[in-house]
Amino acid sequence: MSRAPFNNAQRWLYLALEQQKGGVWAILINRFLMLLVVVNVLAVVAESEHSLYQAYKPFFTWFEASSVIIFTLEYVLRLWVCTEAEQLHFKHPIGGRGRYMLTPMALVDLLAIVPFYLSFFWGVADLRVLRSLRLLRLLKLTRYSHSLELLLTVLRQEADNLVSALFILCMLVLLSATGIYLVEGHIQPDKFGSIPRALWWSAVTVATVGYGDVVPITLVGKVFSGIIIVTGIAVAALPAAILASGMINELKRRGERFRTELVRTMENGKLDFGGLRYLEKMRVTIGISRAEAHLIFEEVKQETRLQTYTNCPHCAQPIVIKHPPGHIHVRPAKRQR
Amino acid sequence: MSRAPFNNAQRWLYLALEQQKGGVWAILINRFLMLLVVVNVLAVVAESEHSLYQAYKPFFTWFEASSVIIFTLEYVLRLWVCTEAEQLHFKHPIGGRGRYMLTPMALVDLLAIVPFYLSFFWGVADLRVLRSLRLLRLLKLTRYSHSLELLLTVLRQEADNLVSALFILCMLVLLSATGIYLVEGHIQPDKFGSIPRALWWSAVTVATVGYGDVVPITLVGKVFSGIIIVTGIAVAALPAAILASGMINELKRRGERFRTELVRTMENGKLDFGGLRYLEKMRVTIGISRAEAHLIFEEVKQETRLQTYTNCPHCAQPIVIKHPPGHIHVRPAKRQR
Amino acid sequence: MSRAPFNNAQRWLYLALEQQKGGVWAILINRFLMLLVVVNVLAVVAESEHSLYQAYKPFFTWFEASSVIIFTLEYVLRLWVCTEAEQLHFKHPIGGRGRYMLTPMALVDLLAIVPFYLSFFWGVADLRVLRSLRLLRLLKLTRYSHSLELLLTVLRQEADNLVSALFILCMLVLLSATGIYLVEGHIQPDKFGSIPRALWWSAVTVATVGYGDVVPITLVGKVFSGIIIVTGIAVAALPAAILASGMINELKRRGERFRTELVRTMENGKLDFGGLRYLEKMRVTIGISRAEAHLIFEEVKQETRLQTYTNCPHCAQPIVIKHPPGHIHVRPAKRQR
Amino acid sequence: MSRAPFNNAQRWLYLALEQQKGGVWAILINRFLMLLVVVNVLAVVAESEHSLYQAYKPFFTWFEASSVIIFTLEYVLRLWVCTEAEQLHFKHPIGGRGRYMLTPMALVDLLAIVPFYLSFFWGVADLRVLRSLRLLRLLKLTRYSHSLELLLTVLRQEADNLVSALFILCMLVLLSATGIYLVEGHIQPDKFGSIPRALWWSAVTVATVGYGDVVPITLVGKVFSGIIIVTGIAVAALPAAILASGMINELKRRGERFRTELVRTMENGKLDFGGLRYLEKMRVTIGISRAEAHLIFEEVKQETRLQTYTNCPHCAQPIVIKHPPGHIHVRPAKRQR
Repeated sequence: MSRAPFNNAQRWLYLALEQQKGGVWAILINRFLMLLVVVNVLAVVAESEHSLYQAYKPFFTWFEASSVIIFTLEYVLRLWVCTEAEQLHFKHPIGGRGRYMLTPMALVDLLAIVPFYLSFFWGVADLRVLRSLRLLRLLKLTRYSHSLELLLTVLRQEADNLVSALFILCMLVLLSATGIYLVEGHIQPDKFGSIPRALWWSAVTVATVGYGDVVPITLVGKVFSGIIIVTGIAVAALPAAILASGMINELKRRGERFRTELVRTMENGKLDFGGLRYLEKMRVTIGISRAEAHLIFEEVKQETRLQTYTNCPHCAQPIVIKHPPGHIHVRPAKRQR
Repeated sequence: MSRAPFNNAQRWLYLALEQQKGGVWAILINRFLMLLVVVNVLAVVAESEHSLYQAYKPFFTWFEASSVIIFTLEYVLRLWVCTEAEQLHFKHPIGGRGRYMLTPMALVDLLAIVPFYLSFFWGVADLRVLRSLRLLRLLKLTRYSHSLELLLTVLRQEADNLVSALFILCMLVLLSATGIYLVEGHIQPDKFGSIPRALWWSAVTVATVGYGDVVPITLVGKVFSGIIIVTGIAVAALPAAILASGMINELKRRGERFRTELVRTMENGKLDFGGLRYLEKMRVTIGISRAEAHLIFEEVKQETRLQTYTNCPHCAQPIVIKHPPGHIHVRPAKRQR
Repeated sequence: MSRAPFNNAQRWLYLALEQQKGGVWAILINRFLMLLVVVNVLAVVAESEHSLYQAYKPFFTWFEASSVIIFTLEYVLRLWVCTEAEQLHFKHPIGGRGRYMLTPMALVDLLAIVPFYLSFFWGVADLRVLRSLRLLRLLKLTRYSHSLELLLTVLRQEADNLVSALFILCMLVLLSATGIYLVEGHIQPDKFGSIPRALWWSAVTVATVGYGDVVPITLVGKVFSGIIIVTGIAVAALPAAILASGMINELKRRGERFRTELVRTMENGKLDFGGLRYLEKMRVTIGISRAEAHLIFEEVKQETRLQTYTNCPHCAQPIVIKHPPGHIHVRPAKRQR
Repeated sequence: MSRAPFNNAQRWLYLALEQQKGGVWAILINRFLMLLVVVNVLAVVAESEHSLYQAYKPFFTWFEASSVIIFTLEYVLRLWVCTEAEQLHFKHPIGGRGRYMLTPMALVDLLAIVPFYLSFFWGVADLRVLRSLRLLRLLKLTRYSHSLELLLTVLRQEADNLVSALFILCMLVLLSATGIYLVEGHIQPDKFGSIPRALWWSAVTVATVGYGDVVPITLVGKVFSGIIIVTGIAVAALPAAILASGMINELKRRGERFRTELVRTMENGKLDFGGLRYLEKMRVTIGISRAEAHLIFEEVKQETRLQTYTNCPHCAQPIVIKHPPGHIHVRPAKRQR
């Protein structure tokens, strides 16, 4: 049967592509894919400069075609090997692959190639828009960074709060636009003559960008702006507060997860070399700092040492209760004290 | 008696309007009210553009009239059903309704319709101001978002500290205005010739808006501005610090509230389906994230497990060891298990 | 002896001026002093506008004279009554008053009146500078706000870290000024021709003020600026991070202080009305929110309920150990279990 | 043998240079070195002003030469005395010195003098670049500040997260540049005609610098910018959130370290004068505030007191109850007291 080597290849590719494991070749493949994304983005940026595009048109065309071929191959391979994942719902040859196709990372991979084929089959719509869509290939890089994953997790978890904060910000922008429209609408009609026109100034002001292309000129307008500016500082601080709070809580939760893992690993009170390596990999995946992991380790070590000497309520013999978090061991005290 | 169906309608409307519960119709009513507010705001913004207003005057008038009628109806209905609230002090048919009228949300609802009637009875004062007041209808939306409620709670709790931070900021603005007035007052008299005039520059600078319409030109003025700009970064960071601290503490307190609720719900050590649904609703209302709730759940589960049923190693009688944090309690088990 | 009423007056004035206690008159006096400071500041700001000063010169002169008289009286009275303070080192009639004069608040009070007398005795130096110094009277207001005191405490405690953050910021400003000087020094010699000239641009840029009066125009200059701008965001975030961390830790410490006070007050496990009033005053002085105080109260209540049933290691009789934090009570268990 | 005084000098110099200890002379030497760095930086800044340089050329040349001689001497001395360090791997006369040369501080010291010698041996390349390199001497100051060390530690620990945050920021900048290029590329071709050109505007806008030299002018462009500006506030808040979280966690870890040290020092339950001095030095080195140290001290004191000596209420024999948090331990007292 020729299935076994096939399976081996599938297994190796899965580890190489999805877990970045498997020796030098796996590293080289991943590095190459990362590099290709970066060069693609640079090509899109460079291409948009008309003179550059005219000068090197054949090169840009060739590079785009090669990239799409490689990304397509990558996508197909990922789809092929995804059944090797540990999660049970990816195991099914068809249903599992269908489910994999709907994961965010797979969608990003698809988005990186689909525009090219669309333009190929339906003819060229707006070349500029189409080319720019290739910038979304940048999202493919998120796969490779644990700290990026941490930030995106925090952003996703705090999305509700962030939207609310931006809603408050937009309300302030709208109210300040209305205010300046009432105050200076008749003085600078082209800039503040209606709320939609005044919105540009108020957004630029509340966000402290301050281009200076539109500026109030009357005394009342300046006093009103001053109040808006100072209020804006407090409101614009909300996202920072939300993200800081979300970051701290997420790191606390990850610390807890690491602690649970640590307690489970040192069940018998000792850590061998294999356990340490496992925990180190765990730490990197979870994304907590080495210093934090060390602190948790020290705390667990101290808690494990805790034990209580007490007496049985029936026979009054001394007993020892050891309690690492989540475990109770009762045993006779070694010596009568 | 025709009271019973009347009561039922009152009950249904209360749940639909105030708790967003009661099937498809309740959801539709609330969605419609939200949409109406948004369209109203858009109408106010569009109306302020003179040409648009002239072109579609009849439509704007008709839309405003309809909106006010609907909002008035909403207000009256809310007033009618408010006695159905769980809080005892809203129960009284007259006193309870009076108290309800003074709640912030009811005042916002009133504010959304009163300007129209005022202009109707006393004639048109300043149409522009009056129309702009309709933007306050936006506040009606705060009713529908839990995370918005969280942010407003934090803002309210930290109001004192924020005001103090803005006071420090205003002091810095005032002192920097005085400084630049002393330094460049005679160079650019129209811009820095007096403290009130210099205030515009200093507010714009300290808040890092930086329009660039007023800029120091002498060496001393620039050195002074540089110092103010750098100091301003530290002072302008105060609101972010206050809000971050307030956010973290508020979420901690809400976590504690959720934990208490959780412990109460799983009194007997188990969580049935009803309990889970109740807790999920609680979680959304309190406004803590799913991940946080999960962590609290795990902690409580662990603590509950810490009541260990074991046997004395000497006499083999069953004993119970309870240890909530900071507490070891050994006693005979109530029943032989 | 006429000492007793004198002592009473001293006591009453001490409470009124330093503790804002003593009925309606005490409140009125403090409100009046606050108002006077605010009006003084407004007068300084208004005076700096030359036309206003010319028009109302007699009024401004009269107001300044009256204010100085009242502030002088206030200073003398505070000096007189300071020996009533609870702190022992203010008790001595002469040494205590000397020590009081060196406290920050007393120095601020002195600073509010000294410039006037200096100008009176040594003649008028620079009127504008002298008048502006009166703005420092604003600092007198810090006496009246607990949350302002909290912010100033945090700023003072984090002063070292803030200075270091501003040092890092200044290094970035200096390095970016040097960079732009090397890159665009020969293109815009009047703006970037030397490091001191380029410093203006780099300070304005790193602090994200961005006036736009000086802007790089070459490609290399823009790329360099882009890097500096993005780096600047991370560095400019340091003060916010420091203050947030300082704020959170300070509030935690104050919470601990409140907890200690609470445990001490409810020694016997109960809180009477007097205890509650004392704790509420304590809470306001310490400056923690009502919600936080409530949480601490709940925690202490729970901890107080903790008690351990164990057995004496000698006679094996059951005993109960109660332990509110910092206390151990050992007593026989009520019933044999 | 003449080794002993030699060794003494080495020891004294080590303490003076690396630990800032050793009486008035040690302080003077360190102050002088700090001052020299600051004056050097000022000289570099002043020199870059062409007219100043021409006027005082001999002085600048002489000052630079003297400074390099002193810094070279400092470097050689530090290299000589580094074997006195407590760390074992610096003890070896040759290997230890080699290792010392690779520490960050030693590299900074080397960087401060090497450019001068390079220009001396290989002739003058670009004087302006060479002179500017001397600004890096500023880094020598980091040796003297504990809070600067704290900030740099936090920045280093959070480097991964910060880079990810800046990556997200750069993605937003790139996407907004692409957007404005698509929207206004044909309106303002010199400013938005290609993505590289549009990048300048988008970097300046997302970072809220807002020079105002490039501004969208069409309605669509303004609406698009508005969205980018508001989104930018949330993304630009990420570094503040990361640093705040890192700061809080680092201070928590340092607090734990101080607590461990404190518990170790007061092993016998008492703190003598030597112990206090040691702890105070420890506190400054670790870089936690006095208030924080006090809180930790109080907590440890309370925990230590929780070892209570009392008597059994039945048999009146002395027993000891120990309860570090989470732990009750009843045993007969070792000695009758």
